[in-house]
Amino acid sequence: MPRRSATDVAGSRAQTLGAAVQLASVVGLEGLTIGRLADRLGMSKSGLVGRFGSKEQLQLATLDQAADIFRRTVYEPADTAAPGLARLNAICDAWVAYLGRPPFPGGCFLTTAMVEFDARPGPVNDAVKKVMRRWLALLEREASTAIDNGELPCETDPKDVAFTINALAVGANCDFQLNRNRASLQRVRRAMATVLDG
Amino acid sequence: MPRRSATDVAGSRAQTLGAAVQLASVVGLEGLTIGRLADRLGMSKSGLVGRFGSKEQLQLATLDQAADIFRRTVYEPADTAAPGLARLNAICDAWVAYLGRPPFPGGCFLTTAMVEFDARPGPVNDAVKKVMRRWLALLEREASTAIDNGELPCETDPKDVAFTINALAVGANCDFQLNRNRASLQRVRRAMATVLDG
Repeated sequence: MPRRSATDVAGSRAQTLGAAVQLASVVGLEGLTIGRLADRLGMSKSGLVGRFGSKEQLQLATLDQAADIFRRTVYEPADTAAPGLARLNAICDAWVAYLGRPPFPGGCFLTTAMVEFDARPGPVNDAVKKVMRRWLALLEREASTAIDNGELPCETDPKDVAFTINALAVGANCDFQLNRNRASLQRVRRAMATVLDG
Repeated sequence: MPRRSATDVAGSRAQTLGAAVQLASVVGLEGLTIGRLADRLGMSKSGLVGRFGSKEQLQLATLDQAADIFRRTVYEPADTAAPGLARLNAICDAWVAYLGRPPFPGGCFLTTAMVEFDARPGPVNDAVKKVMRRWLALLEREASTAIDNGELPCETDPKDVAFTINALAVGANCDFQLNRNRASLQRVRRAMATVLDG
């Protein structure tokens, strides 16, 4: 049997994680079992255990992958905008587009993971907190730049800006996933605009 | 064996639903099985089946009970305030207090139910939608009154007010349940105040 190259192994790991993200966005990270994913991929459970070690390792790798997709979809397109208010607005545009056409069949993966793991201490809960903290810190940094640039009033608290925009997006995701009413996407963008209006 | 009075039956139904709400706020409405609840109450499964008929009937009755607790905690205390802006502010005060000290161990029951059932069509999904629609309609009615009273600018869209306040509360609930940072409660109240500031 020929040895598989490092590229093959990395490729199949990425494919596996891609399937894991899709599945977990519907059944939750807790519903993401080695057995269920093995069925989906037509793989043996022992092959998956060999790749990830445990259900928890699989959950952590899947969360990482979802955070990466979020970053590529919402943050990276905004990275070409000038730091500060322009970048915050570009992030909000990409974020609302993401809410309306999420790359995960079950809607925003991170919202679901937050609700699922908030009362379950452990490594997955820690990882969800870390992802959220990093994202809020990034929004806060852009808000601080906007204040330094004079684009937001100097008495603005950048943590308030980050918190409020994030809360609006999380709340709008819940509403949109439930009701599929596209007017909600316009409403949340208007609410974000008010926050960024100073 | 003496026959139980109608009051006894109603009392034990209320006790059962009280336990169901507590359990489901932690394990989710989907995790709320007849077997799990029977264990918790030290009852037989057949006794519970006799009372509720099916898991789905139990889920629907539990959701109803949770909506009732929400209404009593968030809406009723505000009912003495004058219709319009004063009542909206009283609702926001009670809502933020509820987020910080929820009557359910797993945090806001309705947020969890929304996230859990958004992608599962059926009677529970329909019931969650109905509860949310009724609550948004109530907020919208108060916003309309505030506009009629001249307390909010006449160009305000009352649906925007209802949507935004609700999205902020849902997003803040997710954040607070995850991080238990009480500063978030002040941030969300400030964000609500901005919406109600006209």
